[in-house]
Amino acid sequence: MTAHINHKSHNGNQDDHPFKRSDSAVSIMHLKREPFKITVIGSGNWGTTIAKVIAENTELHSHIFNPEVRMWVFDEKIGDENLTDIINTRHQNVKYLPNIDLPHNLVADPDLLHSIKGADILVFNIPHQFLPNIVKQLQGHVAPHVRAISCLKGFELGSKGVQLLSSYVTDELGVQCGALSGANLAPEVAKEHWSETTVAYQLPKDYQGEGKDVDHKVLKLLFHRPYFHVNVIDDVAGISIAGALKNVVALACGFVEGMGWGNNASAAIQRLGLGEIIKFGRMFFPESKVETYYQESAGVADLITTCSGGRNVKVATYMAKTGKSALEAEKELLNGQSAQGIITCREVHEWLQTCELTQEYPLFEAVYQIVYNNVRMEDLPEMIEELDIEDK
Amino acid sequence: MTAHINHKSHNGNQDDHPFKRSDSAVSIMHLKREPFKITVIGSGNWGTTIAKVIAENTELHSHIFNPEVRMWVFDEKIGDENLTDIINTRHQNVKYLPNIDLPHNLVADPDLLHSIKGADILVFNIPHQFLPNIVKQLQGHVAPHVRAISCLKGFELGSKGVQLLSSYVTDELGVQCGALSGANLAPEVAKEHWSETTVAYQLPKDYQGEGKDVDHKVLKLLFHRPYFHVNVIDDVAGISIAGALKNVVALACGFVEGMGWGNNASAAIQRLGLGEIIKFGRMFFPESKVETYYQESAGVADLITTCSGGRNVKVATYMAKTGKSALEAEKELLNGQSAQGIITCREVHEWLQTCELTQEYPLFEAVYQIVYNNVRMEDLPEMIEELDIEDK
Repeated sequence: MTAHINHKSHNGNQDDHPFKRSDSAVSIMHLKREPFKITVIGSGNWGTTIAKVIAENTELHSHIFNPEVRMWVFDEKIGDENLTDIINTRHQNVKYLPNIDLPHNLVADPDLLHSIKGADILVFNIPHQFLPNIVKQLQGHVAPHVRAISCLKGFELGSKGVQLLSSYVTDELGVQCGALSGANLAPEVAKEHWSETTVAYQLPKDYQGEGKDVDHKVLKLLFHRPYFHVNVIDDVAGISIAGALKNVVALACGFVEGMGWGNNASAAIQRLGLGEIIKFGRMFFPESKVETYYQESAGVADLITTCSGGRNVKVATYMAKTGKSALEAEKELLNGQSAQGIITCREVHEWLQTCELTQEYPLFEAVYQIVYNNVRMEDLPEMIEELDIEDK
Repeated sequence: MTAHINHKSHNGNQDDHPFKRSDSAVSIMHLKREPFKITVIGSGNWGTTIAKVIAENTELHSHIFNPEVRMWVFDEKIGDENLTDIINTRHQNVKYLPNIDLPHNLVADPDLLHSIKGADILVFNIPHQFLPNIVKQLQGHVAPHVRAISCLKGFELGSKGVQLLSSYVTDELGVQCGALSGANLAPEVAKEHWSETTVAYQLPKDYQGEGKDVDHKVLKLLFHRPYFHVNVIDDVAGISIAGALKNVVALACGFVEGMGWGNNASAAIQRLGLGEIIKFGRMFFPESKVETYYQESAGVADLITTCSGGRNVKVATYMAKTGKSALEAEKELLNGQSAQGIITCREVHEWLQTCELTQEYPLFEAVYQIVYNNVRMEDLPEMIEELDIEDK
């Protein structure tokens, strides 16, 4: 955890209101350069929501940030209008985030390269599968001083092992990249219902110093809102691992829910899942911190939110209730989309098999076996049972 | 975590079934004394459920345990029959656990002192408020070699500080006492829906040695079932702290649920609550382990179950929706019973105030202020906001 200068500890007058904020207690940031210019790449519901959060903050902290925030939009026609034009005139993303008013300093831009012109911070918020193509278009157009934050969840698992999406951005574009992840269902954040998130960022070797470069303070000011509480940490790997593996755990929660096993069983699955997430993270990214998994919004909180609903739980519950396969369940429920956990549990299995470690992750392995090898989900308790001793 | 001899790691034949148990892989326990005799004190729904679990195991491991399990029942008339007689003839606790068949080797006994005669292990499972009276009756009748497990949740907080209920039993009866706690809604366990629990027990100074005395192996055999997975650890304080404080967190979850803030907010409350539980436990019981809170059923899993339903969430949701006080909400919803979190949050506040530490626990303090001082629950995000920095 980062050390906090917590305003509540400096509360001058407790009698009026036990939590009244004392504004004198907050430290001041002096910028020693031009205000940072921000571009958000992506305009789905989460992309637009994050762009809204950022634009509110750049307006508020206008001597730290250039108030105008660009948002790259994959343009499409809505009736005879361009989505970009609608966003820029009516200030709503009528297609992906209807009925939410966007700040006027948020400017939609259909031209990717134009949108990033002069940007100091790039915020990636597109579907995972579009990342390689976007990055390819950006190659050669991003200055090395630029910094990036990826709001994409997770990592890629291949035969080479685990690659974080932030590392992919760094490798392909040559810019330092962090991540943002948390218990954040986009529509709730867009409506300004209170939630939390985690931003993870490591200072690069060419860090220019406080007031001159992006660091934890700058990122806190960029993302934190009264309704969107941000904790900034170093552990990019931890939040990325947690963000991907939670979907596998959510499948198992869906199984026990579909079988009608109740709240005890669902909580047990989440506990076991958290344990295997921590083990996986620590095994393959030993520098990731255990606290990230159990103390951050991107860890335990995102796990809880994901296991209380969403696509993965839905598909798995349906499988349990109907006896249909994952493929059939996805087809019938998700309109051609996929539940991420179905893909991730296979990737995790293949990677663990390569490492000869499947038996160390009984829950992940059980999910894989149920989804791909028709193992009975009723056997789940036996698959994950730990017997220290038995008498004879 | 304890080290496990996990049967899955010794799996001989993976091809047939990836999880098939290899019975040769489990170790064997040799008893070097008379089989242990067990008495369960209490016969509510949780007491009867635990007695059922135990009786199944004493029957199965009859060379380790005396198969006959006594259960002390506070006798009452059901029509013209005694509850005790009904349990002993029809093998159902028709009042507190109807429609669940109980093992025939479970014997109800209305006489407290008779029920514990010759017992080696006492399992306490009565409502918290009856404990002092029961313990008083037992004084002078319990041999020092007897061991105990408390299934009561939590601790007592007074001006002297935090006292664990297990320590209270030890102090008053002079016997070593551990605890059992977990994500265990009794009706689900009674129906043998899969769940998990945590048993915590520290070996006493007069521990007689393996095969001669109660230890982790004996407790695993006593409580573990295929549908009720048990992990045995040392950390009695950790599971007791978690078991009590979760109810305060559940109130906060009820508030945000009642205000319609959604899943993000509820997950955030649970994350913050887990953090304050860990902080509280580590501050007042430094020997308690952080892992207990985030890795055990009695920790994070019980927190999740409790925050997904139950009395505390119900009362708090009702307060949020109607604007009524905690007292009114309890009166209207709980039929004269109380939501434990209402009491615990006051005790915690008073204790922390004595220590001048209320500001270190913003969530616990916010719950107290909302319940007792009419602070607006809409202000909750501001009460718990952490501002590392602010620009001017």
